[in-house]
Amino acid sequence: MPDKVTIAVDAMGGDHAPGVVLEGCADALAADPSLHVVLCGPASVVVPFAEAHERCTPQPAEEVIGMGEHPARAVRQKKDSSIVAGCRAVREGAAQGFFSAGSTGACLAAATLVMGRVKGVARPALATVIPSPVRPVVLTDIGANADCKPAYLVQFAQMATVYMEKVLGVANPRVALLNIGEEDTKGSAFAQEAHALMREKVPNFAGNGEGCDILPAAFDVFVTDGFTGNVCLKTIEGTSKTLFKALKGVLTAGPATKLAALAVKGGLKGLMERVSPDTYGGAPLLGVKGACVVGHGSSGPLAVKNGILTTARIVRERVAETIEQAVAGAQDADGADAERGGAVAAGVPQVGAAGAPAGADDAATPQAAPDADAPDAGAER
Amino acid sequence: MPDKVTIAVDAMGGDHAPGVVLEGCADALAADPSLHVVLCGPASVVVPFAEAHERCTPQPAEEVIGMGEHPARAVRQKKDSSIVAGCRAVREGAAQGFFSAGSTGACLAAATLVMGRVKGVARPALATVIPSPVRPVVLTDIGANADCKPAYLVQFAQMATVYMEKVLGVANPRVALLNIGEEDTKGSAFAQEAHALMREKVPNFAGNGEGCDILPAAFDVFVTDGFTGNVCLKTIEGTSKTLFKALKGVLTAGPATKLAALAVKGGLKGLMERVSPDTYGGAPLLGVKGACVVGHGSSGPLAVKNGILTTARIVRERVAETIEQAVAGAQDADGADAERGGAVAAGVPQVGAAGAPAGADDAATPQAAPDADAPDAGAER
Repeated sequence: MPDKVTIAVDAMGGDHAPGVVLEGCADALAADPSLHVVLCGPASVVVPFAEAHERCTPQPAEEVIGMGEHPARAVRQKKDSSIVAGCRAVREGAAQGFFSAGSTGACLAAATLVMGRVKGVARPALATVIPSPVRPVVLTDIGANADCKPAYLVQFAQMATVYMEKVLGVANPRVALLNIGEEDTKGSAFAQEAHALMREKVPNFAGNGEGCDILPAAFDVFVTDGFTGNVCLKTIEGTSKTLFKALKGVLTAGPATKLAALAVKGGLKGLMERVSPDTYGGAPLLGVKGACVVGHGSSGPLAVKNGILTTARIVRERVAETIEQAVAGAQDADGADAERGGAVAAGVPQVGAAGAPAGADDAATPQAAPDADAPDAGAER
Repeated sequence: MPDKVTIAVDAMGGDHAPGVVLEGCADALAADPSLHVVLCGPASVVVPFAEAHERCTPQPAEEVIGMGEHPARAVRQKKDSSIVAGCRAVREGAAQGFFSAGSTGACLAAATLVMGRVKGVARPALATVIPSPVRPVVLTDIGANADCKPAYLVQFAQMATVYMEKVLGVANPRVALLNIGEEDTKGSAFAQEAHALMREKVPNFAGNGEGCDILPAAFDVFVTDGFTGNVCLKTIEGTSKTLFKALKGVLTAGPATKLAALAVKGGLKGLMERVSPDTYGGAPLLGVKGACVVGHGSSGPLAVKNGILTTARIVRERVAETIEQAVAGAQDADGADAERGGAVAAGVPQVGAAGAPAGADDAATPQAAPDADAPDAGAER
């Protein structure tokens, strides 16, 4: 039986909360007999559920952070929200990880501010498993840091490597920098600098990968800034959805094709399941203490269940602790431990500071996330 | 009968040159009785073809620029290459437009240096028609400018608007800024600044669009920097290709599905044609004098034919002249004519210079393109 683990779950996260969250939560508890849940949300929602389910503790929190709210402001103001309550449960040791299908921006802000960053990590990064029909691929950052310095990408690569090894079981994953050409010298000034840093500091760096390499899984991990990663992820989602819709039109065009559709229905369903984001159930925020996984707002019960189970796996596999070691090892290796927090002006590319990893102290406030508002002015440092 | 127009064609461009280029060229000549071609390439290739076809003039050029060569350097050194000869034919009036399926970077460099930029255009941008199954969508820049200033995107929007209206026949197209959230305040510092500028200067600006909005054609035009645009385009290509391949696996899995595949074959073929890049045959470089269209290296005869016909249409519709008027009109409108070439340090975001469009004189050398090497150091200005 796996180790006992307790996950705080935001009962109010997502477009269909609390219904699908409770359903997914029940399924996760049924699937994993060593899983405990701290269910955060209004007492009227979480108390009855906890009474009806074993291994579930209610954590009443009467406020809800909406998808449209300014994330950092909402986290500061709504101390009694389900998101803040969940992160507080982790900080206080009542749980070891947190799952929510709510506002990504608010989750990032709360996890970073309340749970805290892993020692040595400049910026936590949001990662996702791209549901490739070939094999799973990790893409990071998908939106936690819209503005990055090249040095951040080195840590994103280190963190995604740990995730790929520990959670997906892929040993020594091949890491690519998402770029616009294969050759080392291609790309924007930012990409060229990131490439040089990764070449120097990431042992499993395999070179540049392009947008067309992601779905075919030409590499195991694709690293990029949060702007490009978010555009890329949403482009994959939009392309898949539109093509499947057009395909449905082809299959239902007439009597003969409808008959044919029956024959391929099973295979198509399998393909759609393989490329469905629900299979992986959420995006881990790498680099925070404990574990934090953010599900899609449109998550169904399966996505919630898988998101909770993934959060539990991150805790059990000691991903945060391994990230701390990986980051510390890399910093020791180039003697940068002593020169944390280089004086780099916010927003200006870190030209010439290639040797110094971004200091841990210059990133106290998370940046805007996919559904976050703009970061506070000056929040960059 | 349409107006007579002469297009210079690079006989040596693409993975399957000169064979497929000659085939596509012959098809284009057959399809358009007012089309003339100046065929550029080794005499042994172009002279026999010109002798065998009406309305074709050979332009011997013995050198070939390979896909792996440094674009700007190759253009400077290989004066007798098919790409440089084609652009020279346009500059000297022997042709009005240029088509090549060769090195994108070399074509951008040659077109910008030899044919020249439209007056008032800071940076030519590479655009493409995204083959959405819903309706055509224009995405720009897809790689001519890996590093952009926010003000460039205003001109990209103006140029793409002209292209959409004149060449695709879409009146008053809705232009979106490719971003990572719908709200005005979302995105990187660059995206937020570009958004504010576009809101001010682009009358048909419709707000932020996301990656998932492209294939469903939620907007007519998506504007972004050349890095993001290139990643995005290649992500769409890789996603479509991988999904169609997986679909083929489903359809050929067993006897019953193979039978079913026969019934849906016609419909599927139609869908694949609608989403094939060959339908549009190439990416126009907007903002150069005359017309320049760059085809995919893997172009088949149909893509070459359509690329040549698109180039002819750009000339006939006077796209370059209309872009000059559009750009001049916008500059007159904010009185910026007199303050061209603001002193903006290369590589540093143009913060605070929002009112001044990038001067025409600060962009003499094109930047790296999708298959271009890194720009020369210092080429940014």
